[in-house]
Amino acid sequence: MQALILAGGSGTRFWPLSRRARPKQLLALEGGATLLQRTVARLAPLVGPRDVWVCTTAALADGVAHQLPEVPRAQVLAEPEGRNTAPAIAWAVTAMPPARRSEPVAVLPADHRIGDDAGFRRALETAGATAADGTVLALGVRPRWAETGYGYLELGEVLDARTGLQRVVRFVEKPDRARAEGFVAGGRYLWNGGIFAFRGDRLLALVERHLPALAAGLAAIAREPRRLAELYRSLPAISIDHGVMEKLDDLATLPLDCGWSDLGSWEALAEVLPRDRDGNSTHGDVVAVSCRDSLLWAEEGTMAVAGLEGMVVVRTGDAVLVMPKSRSQEVREVVDRLRDEGREDLL
Amino acid sequence: MQALILAGGSGTRFWPLSRRARPKQLLALEGGATLLQRTVARLAPLVGPRDVWVCTTAALADGVAHQLPEVPRAQVLAEPEGRNTAPAIAWAVTAMPPARRSEPVAVLPADHRIGDDAGFRRALETAGATAADGTVLALGVRPRWAETGYGYLELGEVLDARTGLQRVVRFVEKPDRARAEGFVAGGRYLWNGGIFAFRGDRLLALVERHLPALAAGLAAIAREPRRLAELYRSLPAISIDHGVMEKLDDLATLPLDCGWSDLGSWEALAEVLPRDRDGNSTHGDVVAVSCRDSLLWAEEGTMAVAGLEGMVVVRTGDAVLVMPKSRSQEVREVVDRLRDEGREDLL
Repeated sequence: MQALILAGGSGTRFWPLSRRARPKQLLALEGGATLLQRTVARLAPLVGPRDVWVCTTAALADGVAHQLPEVPRAQVLAEPEGRNTAPAIAWAVTAMPPARRSEPVAVLPADHRIGDDAGFRRALETAGATAADGTVLALGVRPRWAETGYGYLELGEVLDARTGLQRVVRFVEKPDRARAEGFVAGGRYLWNGGIFAFRGDRLLALVERHLPALAAGLAAIAREPRRLAELYRSLPAISIDHGVMEKLDDLATLPLDCGWSDLGSWEALAEVLPRDRDGNSTHGDVVAVSCRDSLLWAEEGTMAVAGLEGMVVVRTGDAVLVMPKSRSQEVREVVDRLRDEGREDLL
Repeated sequence: MQALILAGGSGTRFWPLSRRARPKQLLALEGGATLLQRTVARLAPLVGPRDVWVCTTAALADGVAHQLPEVPRAQVLAEPEGRNTAPAIAWAVTAMPPARRSEPVAVLPADHRIGDDAGFRRALETAGATAADGTVLALGVRPRWAETGYGYLELGEVLDARTGLQRVVRFVEKPDRARAEGFVAGGRYLWNGGIFAFRGDRLLALVERHLPALAAGLAAIAREPRRLAELYRSLPAISIDHGVMEKLDDLATLPLDCGWSDLGSWEALAEVLPRDRDGNSTHGDVVAVSCRDSLLWAEEGTMAVAGLEGMVVVRTGDAVLVMPKSRSQEVREVVDRLRDEGREDLL
């Protein structure tokens, strides 16, 4: 089984800790290893690092390779430009030697958190075994709340009661609050976690059928690898969900119950970090007086806080961010403002 | 007229901006000049810098002299150790040449804010003229709210209706809330602003009578100036209020209505700083998204805040402080904690 890790994200949700040159997947948000390193380490008992492929951007490739010395350098693929997930996945699969391309391939985001690694591996092992016969799987996460920021998978017939394999009827875009609540209550929907499993050659056949322009572009790259930078930039920028998965009438899924989180915000991180008896999660040199339920992160320097409740305070060498935890989505607006103001030093 | 500025304070209320080596009076809290420099500049039309004396601590003397190049260096007096205000004032007066010692002397804290400089000078001029005949004055501030953190002066008979000169019946220590409210409502009390006026020779005579140990100590210093450090440390540590002023039955006062503030906290500073249309006061490189009524001070680096209301956020090169404005007294607890933890680098 091969693992393909998508590590090209340039998310700004953990600003000021995350920057263009150091996005979320390269951060050690829970201490010790980075999310990328944890993603690889989590697989190891099932998929060793020599069977790991990482697709990232040119700007991040050296950093990725540095964090993953056990992954062969040739398997750290650098996209000349991010073109969404369909080109990234299809290009990476074409890079695999034919023998490995005919194995099951698991596609995994580099920046998610899994609470129960062993449970995750068990699900992935089942997914791999299922994919070996040609089945394509989009793994889903049992929804724990009515999230309006995720896409959902609608569940159909049970294909295998023992493993929990089930048909996906359709993909649902981010729903509004009322629909999301219905999805969670009804029990017939999963969060789309962006985790897939398929045989590599089967995926390429599906790309050929559903995304012929992408297939043609990849063929051109194969013929003229020196023109990679130019040709890659002209590939259709489309997600694997839209470009391939939604078009399948035999897509399958397995539900994941293994403490998955996409760590989409400082608030989401605060939910999974250890807390002291006042409910605070601290990192670095923090002095907290009469504070509760706050995430207090001092990457450099000293942080002193008093009388805070439900706040996020993050301090790096050059910046500090303060906001209520519940408004941590608004870090995007901060970053947009910095971009508008040309503050490249802070992005 | 001579002016004696007390600049030995080591307050920690503006931590992390204020430090032992850079206390409040040496900070430019309103931009431009420091509180000490403003105190001297404010006097200039009435008392020129050559008639200004500054009493500070040995650790701060160079910094004080540097900020006040127009004040003769010999008139920047360095206490070997802070011994409260009675020794500081009496020692400084003994340092004055006899001719100047017989002039009126105004004693002024170095770290207060005055909104109306001209009004303040008019009051001080009246105080000086009154002191010239031997009267001792403790100037008071008309209370604007029921402050429990200040001492009060109880007013007695009116001595001069034209100038507003009035007898002080007694000093009242920091009252509780109910008493403070009564003081403000009744109109017969002033805040004790720590501003005094007297003839220097009269003050020394009063010290001789009411604080004979201090007078004897100062005489010993005069005899053996080389033993200053040792002798000064043995002077009785007592305030001029307790040691002298409270014992006078002919103490007079003038009410000040000139936008006085002791800037006793970040909250007090926020009240006097200019605000933008969202009610925020900012300093330095601040990006504020959806914030209201907050004091956002970036001494170094960038500060980004979102969704804050009524907060204080202060960032220096080495530290950041975050607290609700209304709890800015708790900065003391932060500083105490740092002291307990031996964080000399941050004090």
